[in-house]
Amino acid sequence: MPVLNLKSDFAGADDLATQMAEIGRRARAASRGIALASAQAKDLALRAVAESIRGAAPTILRENARDVTAAKAADLTPSIIDRLTLDEGRVSAIAEAVEKVAGLPDPVGRQLAAFERPNGLLIERISVPLGVVGVIFESRPNVTADAGALCLKAGNAAILRAGSDSHRTATAIATAMSEGLSRSGLPADAIQLVPTRDRAAVGLMLTGLDGCVDVIVPRGGRSLVERVQSEAKVPVFAHLDGICHVYVAAAADLGMARTVLLNSKMRRTGICGAAETLLVDAAVARTHLKPLIEALLESGCAVRGDETVRLADPRVTQASEADWRTEYLDAIISARVVDGLDAAIAHIEANGSHHTDAIITDDVDAATRFLNEVDSAIVVHNASTQFADGGEFGFGAEIGIATGRMHARGPVGVEQLTTFKYRVHGSGQTRP
Amino acid sequence: MPVLNLKSDFAGADDLATQMAEIGRRARAASRGIALASAQAKDLALRAVAESIRGAAPTILRENARDVTAAKAADLTPSIIDRLTLDEGRVSAIAEAVEKVAGLPDPVGRQLAAFERPNGLLIERISVPLGVVGVIFESRPNVTADAGALCLKAGNAAILRAGSDSHRTATAIATAMSEGLSRSGLPADAIQLVPTRDRAAVGLMLTGLDGCVDVIVPRGGRSLVERVQSEAKVPVFAHLDGICHVYVAAAADLGMARTVLLNSKMRRTGICGAAETLLVDAAVARTHLKPLIEALLESGCAVRGDETVRLADPRVTQASEADWRTEYLDAIISARVVDGLDAAIAHIEANGSHHTDAIITDDVDAATRFLNEVDSAIVVHNASTQFADGGEFGFGAEIGIATGRMHARGPVGVEQLTTFKYRVHGSGQTRP
Repeated sequence: MPVLNLKSDFAGADDLATQMAEIGRRARAASRGIALASAQAKDLALRAVAESIRGAAPTILRENARDVTAAKAADLTPSIIDRLTLDEGRVSAIAEAVEKVAGLPDPVGRQLAAFERPNGLLIERISVPLGVVGVIFESRPNVTADAGALCLKAGNAAILRAGSDSHRTATAIATAMSEGLSRSGLPADAIQLVPTRDRAAVGLMLTGLDGCVDVIVPRGGRSLVERVQSEAKVPVFAHLDGICHVYVAAAADLGMARTVLLNSKMRRTGICGAAETLLVDAAVARTHLKPLIEALLESGCAVRGDETVRLADPRVTQASEADWRTEYLDAIISARVVDGLDAAIAHIEANGSHHTDAIITDDVDAATRFLNEVDSAIVVHNASTQFADGGEFGFGAEIGIATGRMHARGPVGVEQLTTFKYRVHGSGQTRP
Repeated sequence: MPVLNLKSDFAGADDLATQMAEIGRRARAASRGIALASAQAKDLALRAVAESIRGAAPTILRENARDVTAAKAADLTPSIIDRLTLDEGRVSAIAEAVEKVAGLPDPVGRQLAAFERPNGLLIERISVPLGVVGVIFESRPNVTADAGALCLKAGNAAILRAGSDSHRTATAIATAMSEGLSRSGLPADAIQLVPTRDRAAVGLMLTGLDGCVDVIVPRGGRSLVERVQSEAKVPVFAHLDGICHVYVAAAADLGMARTVLLNSKMRRTGICGAAETLLVDAAVARTHLKPLIEALLESGCAVRGDETVRLADPRVTQASEADWRTEYLDAIISARVVDGLDAAIAHIEANGSHHTDAIITDDVDAATRFLNEVDSAIVVHNASTQFADGGEFGFGAEIGIATGRMHARGPVGVEQLTTFKYRVHGSGQTRP
């Protein structure tokens, strides 16, 4: 075994390319089996996978302890180590999440549209799986199970690439999942974990493995997403930044504005739907600005503001130009006064990231214009930006949030992991 | 004017990059105006565009004559020269096609889904324009108007790049279109033609012009599509090949099989939905093979077959392995006998191009399996493969047919030139 590991760790570039190509071919082959599996077969398989994960808990925890020891030795940050660390409760939660995916409606085979043509042809648009999904993630070991389960539910094969910090844990989870698949008669290759820590494997995945990867989903920090977006030769479902705005417009109720703003910013500061910039309309600045800024400061949020905002409270520091384009992912907010709805929309279009933006107002016309004209994946009236989440949208679970314009936008759930085909039913029609 | 033209023709790489970047910025700016234009404003603009094209007919025909003279001098093929040549009737047809697009339902602002969450949030999925569409085409000058009109109807700005053979004609048409747009109060930059014949402009478009192009649609031959697919840094709606199959299965009615096969192959041989391979099930080979092959031969189609097919008629030549993967776009078909439904599906999956494939049979179960298991954009039961067309699907018009798995698949009409956003309506909800 040590010899084998050494061989894998020090494999040359050719060996790696061969190995990755083989993973791609297996995924493509498995994807045909999974695509044609019945809803019941997939759900039984997902329940078997959950059972396997529960049964493998001792192995998973043992491998996780090795990852955690290595992470501590490498002086990784406490937050990374926390994300990495599993206990029995967390393993149990991973298995439960897989069972929850089994309980979702089958996203494959839905009739999305149907139309009969004058010549009698009946044309249906039917949802079908995407094919092979490549998921590249960092330190959270639960992504192995979550992403694998979502892909499987949507009839896709998954190629999972774990960050090297969580590699041992991910391997133990993926092995358990493949066992569950085999036991239930579905192809074990439908969920494969890239078995090497060699970073060149990521580059190979991004090439699409000779047509064997249909889409890449990166799950991780900005540098990972940036690399994936710039190198990928296949479509990517991702967002680079979540520079989300809360715009407190004219006719905003102060109480609602305060509650929604605090929730948008402070409920969790590290998620992509957290607000990063507050825009206060000049029309309500006199009454609303000071209480809103004070509420932020008192909740422990640092405020970086323009001149007007600085006058509202001496604790506000000066915002630089860069602040308007910064995703803090922390208890910091940038704030400025804007002169009306058009200025608010212009600020968001110039500085935002097309993720999630909210308007607070009792003026329905202003809200309608904001929802129409702000070109973001999610636009919100009178509610928190932190609702930007597949679970909150009722999708059951999500593999991520996308801000690209193609195919999947907003929360990417099982439905977004499908595409469609046209089925044409005739009775001998020919085209004139 | 000659000086300006010379300057543009001999512009250096930096000049070209600057020029293309400016086109991108203008398109992005125009896309905001078009995206928010009402259905009525867009339709009035399209009618104004059609009028402009009619009014500019003398100019368009004069420029077209110059293109045709140059094409003849350059010894281009008669079919290219035919595609290139306009007369008054063809200019009129171009204007009518634009008016037809005006008459289509507005694809923007449709409610694609709506769901109320237990917390009272109402979430809508609403269709919105894609943004900026880059269209790269070859010698057909009508694509300038067709593609520009479809993009505009879907609320997108278009950057059009004409082949150098049709550059003068395309410039005259695009100029007329911009005039029509300006007259109707929409941004003239919503339809821009790349003003240089420099081929490096294509490469720059494929980079996405610094985020100013959202999708590329190539309209032309295989070499163009291949280049676009391999170089593009942005999504591409295209198909490389249309290797379409007609599978005459067990329980196929011979009369229907013959009619549908002849139409699939011979109605027009040069379109992507034309059949290129005939598969005859061994179960009906004794009764059906000879009449089908004879019908093909008698209609003027050359047949390249396997051993069994050659025995059916001495005029059949031997098919090579390459024939199963060849898109003839001509009066040639490859033909073989397959041993049952699974063998037919396996042949199509191994050799097809995921475009359009048909089964002829009276056995509904076999048809259902074929429609489910053949992984093509369009699968057809008992009808011609030549129905693979946006007009025949009822989409009104199409910008092309896509075989990729993302976003647009099958005929790409105005609906497929949109994406969506989520509008969330709240009453002060915060996330627990």
